[in-house]
Amino acid sequence: MEKIEHIGIAVNNLEDANILFANLLGAPHYKMEEVLSEGVKTSFFKSGPNKIELLEATNEDSPIAKFLERKGEGIHHIAFAVDDIVSEIDRLKQEGFKVLNEIPKKGADNKLVAFLHPKGTNGVLVELCQEIKAV
Amino acid sequence: MEKIEHIGIAVNNLEDANILFANLLGAPHYKMEEVLSEGVKTSFFKSGPNKIELLEATNEDSPIAKFLERKGEGIHHIAFAVDDIVSEIDRLKQEGFKVLNEIPKKGADNKLVAFLHPKGTNGVLVELCQEIKAV
Repeated sequence: MEKIEHIGIAVNNLEDANILFANLLGAPHYKMEEVLSEGVKTSFFKSGPNKIELLEATNEDSPIAKFLERKGEGIHHIAFAVDDIVSEIDRLKQEGFKVLNEIPKKGADNKLVAFLHPKGTNGVLVELCQEIKAV
Repeated sequence: MEKIEHIGIAVNNLEDANILFANLLGAPHYKMEEVLSEGVKTSFFKSGPNKIELLEATNEDSPIAKFLERKGEGIHHIAFAVDDIVSEIDRLKQEGFKVLNEIPKKGADNKLVAFLHPKGTNGVLVELCQEIKAV
């Protein structure tokens, strides 16, 4: 766990939320990206050394659609940057954490990602993310 | 809004959560502090340039007790460091954000703090915090 890479926030309408967060943070989002496999459209804001990721569901099976239905808009996850996601998954499994996907998958923002089950982390959905480096 | 100062996480039992987050983050909390006016006990972990703050309620009128009752354990707020909390409150009011306490109050970790109403920020409880400097 190197540092907090980003905070993910689930929103109903990405376009409206982009305007609101630009006013809040004092600068607009710097990119948008759709992740088809997760059923989400995302936008990214810089916040000092971290990022804020807004997430809108693009279909009703999306984890974000389910989160919004259950809890409404709000903070969805904390993502921590890791150097080696495979060894970090191993370490956390040995510590007793439940990893939702033991094989890292491709997430937004050129990252390999894995999630920990929030039941084992005081209700916090924790994402591990490792930058995918060009070979 | 300089950067994310910390992420606040509401927990049922601070002692248990301290052990769990030490395992998660790979290092123990570095301080604990009670904030009587808010009815909370807190502990702090470093995470790169940011902090993680765990919050346990110390009485049933505490905002954390109400949050836990309504939503259960999980991420409670994002705190942004600001240089001048009074002018940032003014700016955000002019942008149409609803500030919960327009007069900054003393929070944990030697900070002046103010909160924005989550109804105006896509469900996210936003804290502004300014370091109290020795005169």
